Amino acid sequence: MSDVVRIGMLGCGTVGQGVVRILHETAGTIERATGHRLEISRVLVRDAQADRPGLDPAVLTTDAEDILGDDRIDIIIEVMGGVDPTHEWLVRALGHGTSVVTANKQLLARFGPELLAAAEEGGSEIRFEASVCAAIPVIKVLRESLLAAEIESVMGIVNGTTNYILSEMRRSGMTYADALAQAQDLGYAEADPTEDVGGADAAAKMAILSSIAFHTRVLIDDVPYTGIDELQSDDVDIAHELGFVMKLLGIARLADGAVSVRVHPALVPGDHPLASVNGADNAVLLESSLVRQIMLEGPGAGGTETASAVVGDVLSVLGSRPGSFLGGALADAGRPMAAEGALESAFYLRLEVADRPGVLARISAVLGECGVSILTVLQRGEGESARLVMILHRGPESQVQAALVRLRDMPEVRDEPVLITVVGSGEAPS
Amino acid sequence: MSDVVRIGMLGCGTVGQGVVRILHETAGTIERATGHRLEISRVLVRDAQADRPGLDPAVLTTDAEDILGDDRIDIIIEVMGGVDPTHEWLVRALGHGTSVVTANKQLLARFGPELLAAAEEGGSEIRFEASVCAAIPVIKVLRESLLAAEIESVMGIVNGTTNYILSEMRRSGMTYADALAQAQDLGYAEADPTEDVGGADAAAKMAILSSIAFHTRVLIDDVPYTGIDELQSDDVDIAHELGFVMKLLGIARLADGAVSVRVHPALVPGDHPLASVNGADNAVLLESSLVRQIMLEGPGAGGTETASAVVGDVLSVLGSRPGSFLGGALADAGRPMAAEGALESAFYLRLEVADRPGVLARISAVLGECGVSILTVLQRGEGESARLVMILHRGPESQVQAALVRLRDMPEVRDEPVLITVVGSGEAPS
Repeated sequence: MSDVVRIGMLGCGTVGQGVVRILHETAGTIERATGHRLEISRVLVRDAQADRPGLDPAVLTTDAEDILGDDRIDIIIEVMGGVDPTHEWLVRALGHGTSVVTANKQLLARFGPELLAAAEEGGSEIRFEASVCAAIPVIKVLRESLLAAEIESVMGIVNGTTNYILSEMRRSGMTYADALAQAQDLGYAEADPTEDVGGADAAAKMAILSSIAFHTRVLIDDVPYTGIDELQSDDVDIAHELGFVMKLLGIARLADGAVSVRVHPALVPGDHPLASVNGADNAVLLESSLVRQIMLEGPGAGGTETASAVVGDVLSVLGSRPGSFLGGALADAGRPMAAEGALESAFYLRLEVADRPGVLARISAVLGECGVSILTVLQRGEGESARLVMILHRGPESQVQAALVRLRDMPEVRDEPVLITVVGSGEAPS
Repeated sequence: MSDVVRIGMLGCGTVGQGVVRILHETAGTIERATGHRLEISRVLVRDAQADRPGLDPAVLTTDAEDILGDDRIDIIIEVMGGVDPTHEWLVRALGHGTSVVTANKQLLARFGPELLAAAEEGGSEIRFEASVCAAIPVIKVLRESLLAAEIESVMGIVNGTTNYILSEMRRSGMTYADALAQAQDLGYAEADPTEDVGGADAAAKMAILSSIAFHTRVLIDDVPYTGIDELQSDDVDIAHELGFVMKLLGIARLADGAVSVRVHPALVPGDHPLASVNGADNAVLLESSLVRQIMLEGPGAGGTETASAVVGDVLSVLGSRPGSFLGGALADAGRPMAAEGALESAFYLRLEVADRPGVLARISAVLGECGVSILTVLQRGEGESARLVMILHRGPESQVQAALVRLRDMPEVRDEPVLITVVGSGEAPS
């Protein structure tokens, strides 16, 4: 690449403007460290007349062809979002040998393998650190530092909105609805929070992370997810009493050659590294027998943070040989997804039962017959009914699900049983 | 670089043998992901007759010239340790265009800028992730992902031995001597623990980290350090009561263009990200206004973990354009070191005083006259003497030191006052 590196930018919203500002403010550092001067040559915007601080109006265009069709552009930064037309545009750019840096989570979670294949074919590079956990450099670490570390599990708090809500529910005893309203007031949650609280945002991020960690093809449709929108404050409180913290976790595992990736609320013990990740922070815990546990933690969102990740990726493109990491390895799929119910885990089980003699005995018997053993029991009478909370020993999920089917049918069991995964040090692969 | 990459290895102890094993076990992954086949062509050992699992005896040599003088070697891995003759050897290799991966902390902390300059001159690359915090990828993250993030502070628990000892002192109320003996029994501390408990090991690591974070020249002699070997269990316990956790911290700051780097025991609030880093784990907290706080945590030592970092660096050499990061920027110094006493901090101050009326008033007056204000006071009578513990508000260190001089002279003050830095969220630059 020549001394002057020409950048074309697709989109110029909050993140794009942050990129412009950082490149401007750190131009001296970048030139000293890399030998390159970065020039924003063209920026695709909706309205070329609007003022963009730090940008010469002459570089603004409303025609994508001015960037995609310009051979002199060395790197394209995509910060416009959306899947259409970005998908087609980036495949084209990569195929023609132009490297791409993108912050587009949906695009990567749906078309990641195809984009990587296009990059390999075109001798270009695609980087997407900003698509997951903003400036926390988890993609680079997985893709480069830990490429040969044989990662066995990726467990993460990858959505800041839900972590803020859960932290507040625990800290102040708020209900879910109140905590959500507060998060919206403070700008941690959007007016329509469905994507975050329902788990879809986390599922997209886990698809990307697990692809890179396990060198395989995981798309968003491969990731079943449950959000926190139906979680009861009671369970958050009881879990806390029992020494656990409720988190919305993405859990990806590679076991016996098969991959499983999920997003759901889970309980972590109070001394677990993820337990102390509070507020809107994100954290990802990477495990393998070679490196044991490595955790990366930080703000998982924010315009400046995301822009910083984009700039880091641009510098990484400058510093790397195209196609040097995980091009084909990722594009051609590889590993099967694990069968439903094949996982082992410990569980939290809450039942509302009739407060009659012998109920605990009958419920314990059902669990025992299904091969499920009980670690802790907490029973509290509440007039005619009683609340029964159990922590179940680690075992096959299929057995717990079978027990649940029988419990639902028992006349003593009122309401739908609540079952929540418990993760912990016993879950570590090493 | 050609499809087959020839590696020469200097040394083959625990880390070296770990590298051999990982390269063997992950050869398929590495070839698929990078397109390169890695071959360990030559290994310098003391005794070429000794059996080395996984290595053909024909590659063993006792003559360094077989590696340094062989043009066909693409990458040299240095895992023999020591400064002499490694320093001279690596400068020579880098100058001739052979890239180097090293785990040698002492070498980097003493001769880092010279080695980087040699690499720049020779068009080669030097990588040294394994020299600090084993497999925690803090060097790569600072050098690449956060190159333009304008890091303002690096705060770390970078020595596992001392963190283990402090964690045990806090957890079980052990004395320093007992916790050290236990650490030695379990292999967390060496028979001669001076380097670790005295702080020199952490100082070397902080020299390396601060050089990379602030793009400047910091050598081990620029880093004043105090260890934990003179720490009193009492202070660990009192701190705990007051809601703080005692840690041996490396603290590097860039303020007003000047760099300060130190290692000393410090108190962190119980909800600080570094407070929950227990046992032999290491963690590094990176702060800047662009990325706020990013923390990397994991095991800071171990043969396999260190070997994994070496392998990650070898793959990074394969994937990168030589000289693309921080060659000259680091070699030519740049920033001044901050003047002594220029820092601001909060402090923990413990005084053993005569239990007489008016003592607290006189001590408070002295502090007030020096411009030091008190946040918390804890006084406990113990017969004729009393123990006075204060948390002092954040302020210039020079003022606290001036107060200390006067307190030492007061007849009511018995024993040497104990002064410990308190860090916390108020310390964050953003």
